[in-house]
Amino acid sequence: MAETVNLSEIKFGPDGLIPAIAQDINTSEVLMMAYMNREALLKTIETRRAHYWSRSKQRLWLKGSTSGNFQEVRSVFYDCDGDTLLLLVEPKGPACHTGERSCFYRAFAGQPEKG
Amino acid sequence: MAETVNLSEIKFGPDGLIPAIAQDINTSEVLMMAYMNREALLKTIETRRAHYWSRSKQRLWLKGSTSGNFQEVRSVFYDCDGDTLLLLVEPKGPACHTGERSCFYRAFAGQPEKG
Repeated sequence: MAETVNLSEIKFGPDGLIPAIAQDINTSEVLMMAYMNREALLKTIETRRAHYWSRSKQRLWLKGSTSGNFQEVRSVFYDCDGDTLLLLVEPKGPACHTGERSCFYRAFAGQPEKG
Repeated sequence: MAETVNLSEIKFGPDGLIPAIAQDINTSEVLMMAYMNREALLKTIETRRAHYWSRSKQRLWLKGSTSGNFQEVRSVFYDCDGDTLLLLVEPKGPACHTGERSCFYRAFAGQPEKG
């Protein structure tokens, strides 16, 4: 299936990576942002499970492979410039390694709480 | 006010930039992703209007300064690594230069429509 995916509109950066935002398809909460290379994007589309490129470990990373917190991918959108991705996902557990549902659990002081 | 903002948890990249996701606080739609430098982030917090760093024009960019489509910023979240921002905004018009409400208006074929 991956062979049929047309990536011609997608612009990977000079490092071969593109930022990918994961949003919970049910709650609409923005869960995390990580990076994909070409292989990660193709595997994500092919398997319908989010794969990223770990910049710290410099390797392909199937989200949930150790935690079990997979992200089942329902849609992959790309923006007008083709340089950012938006995944609508069904998360099988917290997105954040801290155990928080979303990685965005802190705001600048003096601001109202989210949600 | 900007002087009192503590940016010690925020990690700007080697290029001095951090990605910032803008989400509509009312509809929860992810509108766009752009980049901020330190000045853009401080101005955003200070004025409560989204400012970005235009990588193509290499200058500070007040979103809406030409189009009128300002983004009134209600909250600024940062993620667990401090290397991505999430703005909850009240958009005064379409986020996208194409006139679309969100920049993420295209998905890979064979996938269900968003929303």
